[in-house]
Amino acid sequence: MALILTFLGKGSTNRTQIAIAAAKLLASQGKRVLLAGQAEPALPTLLGIPVGYEPQEIGANLHVVQFQTSSLLERTWESVKKLEREYLRSPFLKDIYSQELPVLPGMDGALVLNAIREYDESGKYDAIVYDGTGDISMLRILGMPESLSWFVRRFRQLFVNSDLGKAISESPFVQPLISTFFNINWTADTFSQPTNQINNLLDKGRAVLADPKRVAAFLVTTDDPVEVATARYLWGSSQQIGLTVGGLIVVSDNTSINLAADFSPLPVSVVPNPTLTDWQPLIDALPNFVEQATQAPKPIEFDISARQVRLFLPGFEKKQVKLTQYGPEVTVEAGDQRRNIVPPPSLSGKTITGAKFQNNYLIISF
Amino acid sequence: MALILTFLGKGSTNRTQIAIAAAKLLASQGKRVLLAGQAEPALPTLLGIPVGYEPQEIGANLHVVQFQTSSLLERTWESVKKLEREYLRSPFLKDIYSQELPVLPGMDGALVLNAIREYDESGKYDAIVYDGTGDISMLRILGMPESLSWFVRRFRQLFVNSDLGKAISESPFVQPLISTFFNINWTADTFSQPTNQINNLLDKGRAVLADPKRVAAFLVTTDDPVEVATARYLWGSSQQIGLTVGGLIVVSDNTSINLAADFSPLPVSVVPNPTLTDWQPLIDALPNFVEQATQAPKPIEFDISARQVRLFLPGFEKKQVKLTQYGPEVTVEAGDQRRNIVPPPSLSGKTITGAKFQNNYLIISF
Repeated sequence: MALILTFLGKGSTNRTQIAIAAAKLLASQGKRVLLAGQAEPALPTLLGIPVGYEPQEIGANLHVVQFQTSSLLERTWESVKKLEREYLRSPFLKDIYSQELPVLPGMDGALVLNAIREYDESGKYDAIVYDGTGDISMLRILGMPESLSWFVRRFRQLFVNSDLGKAISESPFVQPLISTFFNINWTADTFSQPTNQINNLLDKGRAVLADPKRVAAFLVTTDDPVEVATARYLWGSSQQIGLTVGGLIVVSDNTSINLAADFSPLPVSVVPNPTLTDWQPLIDALPNFVEQATQAPKPIEFDISARQVRLFLPGFEKKQVKLTQYGPEVTVEAGDQRRNIVPPPSLSGKTITGAKFQNNYLIISF
Repeated sequence: MALILTFLGKGSTNRTQIAIAAAKLLASQGKRVLLAGQAEPALPTLLGIPVGYEPQEIGANLHVVQFQTSSLLERTWESVKKLEREYLRSPFLKDIYSQELPVLPGMDGALVLNAIREYDESGKYDAIVYDGTGDISMLRILGMPESLSWFVRRFRQLFVNSDLGKAISESPFVQPLISTFFNINWTADTFSQPTNQINNLLDKGRAVLADPKRVAAFLVTTDDPVEVATARYLWGSSQQIGLTVGGLIVVSDNTSINLAADFSPLPVSVVPNPTLTDWQPLIDALPNFVEQATQAPKPIEFDISARQVRLFLPGFEKKQVKLTQYGPEVTVEAGDQRRNIVPPPSLSGKTITGAKFQNNYLIISF
């Protein structure tokens, strides 16, 4: 049960520096911290040491690791092959070696999310600081439990009744394969309810993401107008996957810089440009991450008595937000993302009677 | 048949500015140019105009478009449903509306690649300047024809003989679905050879990527050590997908900056920091993209008489490169990427007799 902290924004070197400083700050407070980065030179260059694919200690309470997709894929592939041997009379994957598997788009995301989940569940860390790509593709990764849930619940019923569903249900291989990528323990007695297993895991992932004490993102920008606009865009896009954004961090040696109006009601911290030799001024200027995250606007709120769903969608204009209702679910499109919302039981099946967009909130009435 | 030009590097605002300047340069030379960016604020903010999801003219010979995954997905989904109606007696996808589909990791990549392919084949453009993420995830996208080819050729034979393969081959739905995402025209008489259809498309994609007159990338950096290290890493990683890197562009107002030693033999262009009001100094400092790309080292060369395969792998040290041979193919791992190489017919089936890594080349002897 770790706090998972990450940063969003366009200036990627700044983001990595702030991730390092945040990891150092949390470690200095006595938390056991894992600083996790991508397989690229930023982290080792800024830390001044090589960084491997297994966590290594680099200070008191502080470990660092790089996520390399190829090595994460190797581990997962061995589990896939093991499952195949259990379920198929004539396994065919046994001749494929994990070391020869190329990486396809999308694999990086699924494997990184699974790795974070495993480090979280290991109980070894109180905080995981993840220095990802900080852009929409990172939000796609963190949003996977939400978006996959939709595919599972929407396709399941349609699928089981179909010709193809019937063909595949006779092969006991496909669903274990899916579950292995998410590393479920699959036993004979749970095999009868594979979809429920997956749903439980996805529900757990969504619950973790929705809890600002467990997962929080902070925006990072300079005063560059492109970076500011991108930070606002990512702020709104985060809400679409249910990710809490706790605050804004502005990297500038000019402490009088004021971006509060663009990001209200988020608290704004101005931090000095990092130097490679002295991290302390940057560390000292960082906000209290947990406090800010717990006080931030919630991405979604259900008001049962008022028969309303309220979605926080900052950074978008009214015309950029689309709302549609298909069957029992409500689809909200904003930015390059769609969110399908299952209304609470008391509003389920009700038709939308009104919607308005004001003060950064989309308010849907039933 | 357009030139597809893209930029790699960590400083993303600089990259977008250079993409805009490159598009303006090529348009001023009389080429019909499409400037394509991601669905985020960078391009509209820098151009000072809204940018839509269909190409719009913003100057003589110059169109601009943003790739929005949700809208690309809608188009593709309609084709999928159409195919389903043709092939399945009881279609089940008809009840899923494209407007409710959430985006999963990996979809962005496949859809962007397909969109670039369609704009290329439209014949409307002489050059497509693609301002993507400029990182490893963009290389995964451009490397898809290569990596998917491996999955097709390696899994096909294993798969058709398997229990699952037999189950699925009785459902004529799965392969048309794959082909639709790549937008092949599928007719009854080609249905007997679906894998060949896919292979042809992938082979075509690989051939385009291997031709420096068709696809070229340029590295963008400042003198920041993290950006320089990242540019070197992306240089080597590009070779792993067969992407030609034509040169290095250094953004700096200090024209005496010298990074040539780190990037030899690439030509280095130093360009001034862009301003939003006057693009001309930046445009004037840009290199001749096609000339530099055609003179750049080739990612892979086969020397039949010397019984050698030579791979250009700059930016990596010897210990970061792994070479293995499984069956008929040779796997090269460097960075976070794997490349599976099919030796030419005269070397096929031969065992590797030696390998050395020198002057940025991995030389494999058979």
